[in-house]
Amino acid sequence: MESGSLLKRVLIGRALRTDRLSDTLLPRRLGMPVFASDALSSVAYAVDEIVLTLALAGGAAVYFYSWEVGVAVGLVMLVVVASYRQTVHAYPGGGGDYEVASDNLGPRAGVAVGSALIVDYTLTVAVSVSAGVQNAAAALQFIRGYEAAVAAGLIALLTLINLRGVRESGRALAVPVYAFLGSLAILILTGAVQLFTGNLDRAASARYELLPAQGYEEATGLFLVFLLLRSFASGSVALTGVQGVANGVPALRRPKSRNAASILAVMAAISITITVSVLWLTRESGIQMAVNPQQQLRLQGEPVGPDFVQDTVLGQLSQVVFGQGSFGVLLVAVTTGVMLFVAANTAFNGFPVLASRLARDRFLPRGLVSRGQRLTYSNGILLLAAASAALVLVYRATVTELIQMYIVGVFISFTLSQAGMVRHWNRRLRTELSLRERVGMVRSRTINQVGVVVSAFVLVIVLLTRFTNGAGLSLLAIGLIWMGMTMVYRYHRTMDNDISLPAEGVDASQVVPSRVHALVYVPQLDRPTMRALAYARATRPHTLEAVTVDVVPEATRELRTAWQQRELPVTLRALDSPYRESARPVIDYVRRVRRDRPRDVVVVYVAEYVGREGWWIRLVRDRTLERLRRGLLRTPGVMLVTVPWQGEGLDED
Amino acid sequence: MESGSLLKRVLIGRALRTDRLSDTLLPRRLGMPVFASDALSSVAYAVDEIVLTLALAGGAAVYFYSWEVGVAVGLVMLVVVASYRQTVHAYPGGGGDYEVASDNLGPRAGVAVGSALIVDYTLTVAVSVSAGVQNAAAALQFIRGYEAAVAAGLIALLTLINLRGVRESGRALAVPVYAFLGSLAILILTGAVQLFTGNLDRAASARYELLPAQGYEEATGLFLVFLLLRSFASGSVALTGVQGVANGVPALRRPKSRNAASILAVMAAISITITVSVLWLTRESGIQMAVNPQQQLRLQGEPVGPDFVQDTVLGQLSQVVFGQGSFGVLLVAVTTGVMLFVAANTAFNGFPVLASRLARDRFLPRGLVSRGQRLTYSNGILLLAAASAALVLVYRATVTELIQMYIVGVFISFTLSQAGMVRHWNRRLRTELSLRERVGMVRSRTINQVGVVVSAFVLVIVLLTRFTNGAGLSLLAIGLIWMGMTMVYRYHRTMDNDISLPAEGVDASQVVPSRVHALVYVPQLDRPTMRALAYARATRPHTLEAVTVDVVPEATRELRTAWQQRELPVTLRALDSPYRESARPVIDYVRRVRRDRPRDVVVVYVAEYVGREGWWIRLVRDRTLERLRRGLLRTPGVMLVTVPWQGEGLDED
Repeated sequence: MESGSLLKRVLIGRALRTDRLSDTLLPRRLGMPVFASDALSSVAYAVDEIVLTLALAGGAAVYFYSWEVGVAVGLVMLVVVASYRQTVHAYPGGGGDYEVASDNLGPRAGVAVGSALIVDYTLTVAVSVSAGVQNAAAALQFIRGYEAAVAAGLIALLTLINLRGVRESGRALAVPVYAFLGSLAILILTGAVQLFTGNLDRAASARYELLPAQGYEEATGLFLVFLLLRSFASGSVALTGVQGVANGVPALRRPKSRNAASILAVMAAISITITVSVLWLTRESGIQMAVNPQQQLRLQGEPVGPDFVQDTVLGQLSQVVFGQGSFGVLLVAVTTGVMLFVAANTAFNGFPVLASRLARDRFLPRGLVSRGQRLTYSNGILLLAAASAALVLVYRATVTELIQMYIVGVFISFTLSQAGMVRHWNRRLRTELSLRERVGMVRSRTINQVGVVVSAFVLVIVLLTRFTNGAGLSLLAIGLIWMGMTMVYRYHRTMDNDISLPAEGVDASQVVPSRVHALVYVPQLDRPTMRALAYARATRPHTLEAVTVDVVPEATRELRTAWQQRELPVTLRALDSPYRESARPVIDYVRRVRRDRPRDVVVVYVAEYVGREGWWIRLVRDRTLERLRRGLLRTPGVMLVTVPWQGEGLDED
Repeated sequence: MESGSLLKRVLIGRALRTDRLSDTLLPRRLGMPVFASDALSSVAYAVDEIVLTLALAGGAAVYFYSWEVGVAVGLVMLVVVASYRQTVHAYPGGGGDYEVASDNLGPRAGVAVGSALIVDYTLTVAVSVSAGVQNAAAALQFIRGYEAAVAAGLIALLTLINLRGVRESGRALAVPVYAFLGSLAILILTGAVQLFTGNLDRAASARYELLPAQGYEEATGLFLVFLLLRSFASGSVALTGVQGVANGVPALRRPKSRNAASILAVMAAISITITVSVLWLTRESGIQMAVNPQQQLRLQGEPVGPDFVQDTVLGQLSQVVFGQGSFGVLLVAVTTGVMLFVAANTAFNGFPVLASRLARDRFLPRGLVSRGQRLTYSNGILLLAAASAALVLVYRATVTELIQMYIVGVFISFTLSQAGMVRHWNRRLRTELSLRERVGMVRSRTINQVGVVVSAFVLVIVLLTRFTNGAGLSLLAIGLIWMGMTMVYRYHRTMDNDISLPAEGVDASQVVPSRVHALVYVPQLDRPTMRALAYARATRPHTLEAVTVDVVPEATRELRTAWQQRELPVTLRALDSPYRESARPVIDYVRRVRRDRPRDVVVVYVAEYVGREGWWIRLVRDRTLERLRRGLLRTPGVMLVTVPWQGEGLDED
């Protein structure tokens, strides 16, 4: 990136020198909020999804099964986190899903995981910011109706924060994560004490009768099992973000692996505790929710009106525990909203690292490889911001619709990454001789094997129960990104084949041409052209000729007269142009010259006026130079020399 | 334009050589349909607009005033056409409104007329095609509901026809114009005979009661005058297209002026006859129409249902004269629809000529000056098609909404152009001595003076009665285009100042630098770079140096080792890059070198890989070369040499 404008400096700070790079690594207490905030915050919408899905079968289903589904999700999280702890130990240099899958299952699997992760990161931002805005709307009523715009604005804010660099955002964002965890701890402990002392109130929504949704009136037998699995699949959205820690390892302070493993363990313990206790208190206080409140909720036989506002599970629970309108309710609402905003930041930290890896492996444009001025991956950050803002605007910040697309990608990468780990251990066991090491490896392999089976099971359930609700669209997006990255890879491979030098000996590219034939392109007689002619003469070529294209005969005659009057020391040749083209005849002539002298090189001098800059200038410029340039660059044995003429008042930078 | 692809050849034909250019001039019998079809066809919607506007005040207003308003419009047309006949004689080399206004009132007035005409041409296409589609829909029911898409498709078809060249479209389009005039002649003559023999039927819509629209219940006194003026303003849409003939003069065969004047006279006679007789027959057969039929039309006190379909005036009149469902009705509907389609073609013939003039006078990009392969102004055609298709799609092919924007531009250019003619005669009278000539000039001036007054009067009425109904929007568009063209003009003027050579003496641009310092940019060691190095050596500069940028120290060390192993005969200099930029350090170094040797020239050699082409490749490419190029071109005393390396399987063309 060139040195930026003043505006850019003010917004994202001064450029950082490379030697300040190691300062930006994160200690554990900051790594936890930065890389685990997504996983922690996803609990907030996971409990809602579990309750909403079960509510399709009516109030009894929620009461009987929500807690059990929560426990099942918790068990899956235990397995997956245990599995990822093996990964961060085996890959101390940074073992994201992408590296693990590429290393062990080959580049095809790697790029599949990469595609899934790109979709995930984008959805993490979109879902978290949308959920955050909807939580905040419960306390700040004026947001309602402008959710999508506010969410897009927040994404812009996150982009700025992240363009300033990882560490600053780590510091800025640790406080809200701990505030969220603190307020939830108070909520759960107070609620538990109330429950065991018999003082827990009933929720305001407990007085409603929750009817089954249309088509779900007789949810028994297999249909009930299907609904339970679907609720379980929705709830597993709580696991999203687990891989964020593994991808973020390189940004942690040493010992990177151990720090990452600790972060994973702490994160799992917190998430499971929150999920299970919140669902328990939800059941005990009789909280009710419905996908379609107008149709499902009845008060004394009457449906609720169109003005009915349905709060989230956390919102309702805090009203039960702290009492409606109390400070505790505001605290939980605000900290949850801010926390979800912070969670979106996880993706901003993880995505650019991934994009850089993919770019280094030639699956993405080279521009994404390198760090921008503020030592972060600016291009990746901007890409992520644009994609997630588009999603938020298209889906008008509706969490439930976005979440449908979210889970597939997460579990594709879980499954492939852990399958890669199983292979990793198999490979290492083939050469390892120390018995002690082998015992540890077999243990790790078993954990990863269980992880693969569980993840694959969830993935199948998600695809079976959610295909039309967004999982299919998500699969399509992953497939398209996969195809795109494969195309980019093939282009890069072809290019590398074309340009790589043989290891030894003299290559054809090193042959020095024997003579230089110079042509100066003369569209008209002006100062830029005169300079091109003067510079061409300065290089003393073997032959030198000026060429013009005869599109309008009178103009050509005038040019020739002026040429003679000025006694210019170079012959002017006029090329015929029966079809009134201005670039083609020059290209054809150059090719003729070159064909006659295959061992020489032809140099074409072209003057270019460099004037005022502006987006609209581009639309106004003559296209002839571009065409000429394009045609000549496709001709072997030709060099194109651009001689600039700088207009008045041009800023040099 | 480069020689086109096979697809392009099939669609728009082979390129034409310049020496076939004079073949494409039009004789009078083809010039009439090509350049006057817009003016002729506008009668079709003008009568509808007159009737619809008067109908706001109820059935009586239509009966009493429609014919009188038609006569007033006819009188204005007589004046304006007489005025334009002076113009085409005074400007035998082609005197469109733009030339007349620029020549006599200065470039500011010229560019104002140019802006108005651009808006007009675009609206001519949009209105005519939309009206044509709606006429056709009366006969071809399946079009209803897809009007906008069909209209956009027809615009695409017109674009293709016109890209093939003027003459072919002239031939193809003469038949429908004469068919339209023929079928209207039959309609009017038959109707007139029926009327005078007492056999003219009552229209089907005559049995409805036409109530005033809401807010127009008491249209008397000044309010009635306002409504009459508004109806007159709407009806003057019949005059649109008159200037098409004057703009098209250069495309006519000799004697160009006399041919154009004849076309104008014939056109006016036909238009006035049609307008007045159609409105007369409309009144006598009791035809009723309403802007809002559901609200205004009553049958025995009951409002008409939502299924009520309201035919155009010509449609209803042909049903009266020929009988419902007869062949005559189909004939009028189809020939009118096709005629309106042909009218859109007028703009396709006039607009590119105007754009070329504006471009020649530096108000538009140079690319619009020259003729494309098929001897027409392809770029202008494509621009017009895009703009009008956008209008049709945005306004969903609704004629009434589009027409509101239409009239303003037409009368702005009428007024300014005729004011220019008055000045033209004044100027000529100052030097003319022959009495006979002077008498003719004074006569012409008087005609033009009347034209200015009448046009300005209509313009004021249109602005007063239609400002909020589209005239304001149209003014805004004209203003924006005016500003844009002024910006383009200023850019071109600055550029011309920057680049123009002094008439005599040796300019600074002609000074030949004393020494040549060559630098080869080495991003990595590959074949393109080796070729750049070899070509640089072939030009035998005074000094030669290879430079690389030290972004990643290990990579630089490796490069240096490889450089030494290959024993390359040029020193490699590594430039520091504390901010990890790859282009900036090179630019800064080049500027240092140049500053130390102000009388020399620095040549920078850059290798460029030219591989597969494709829209997405552009997204994938490394931006470093672009940045380098941009920075170096802004540095005085520097030449940039691009040495291409052609990849495998590259097509040379």
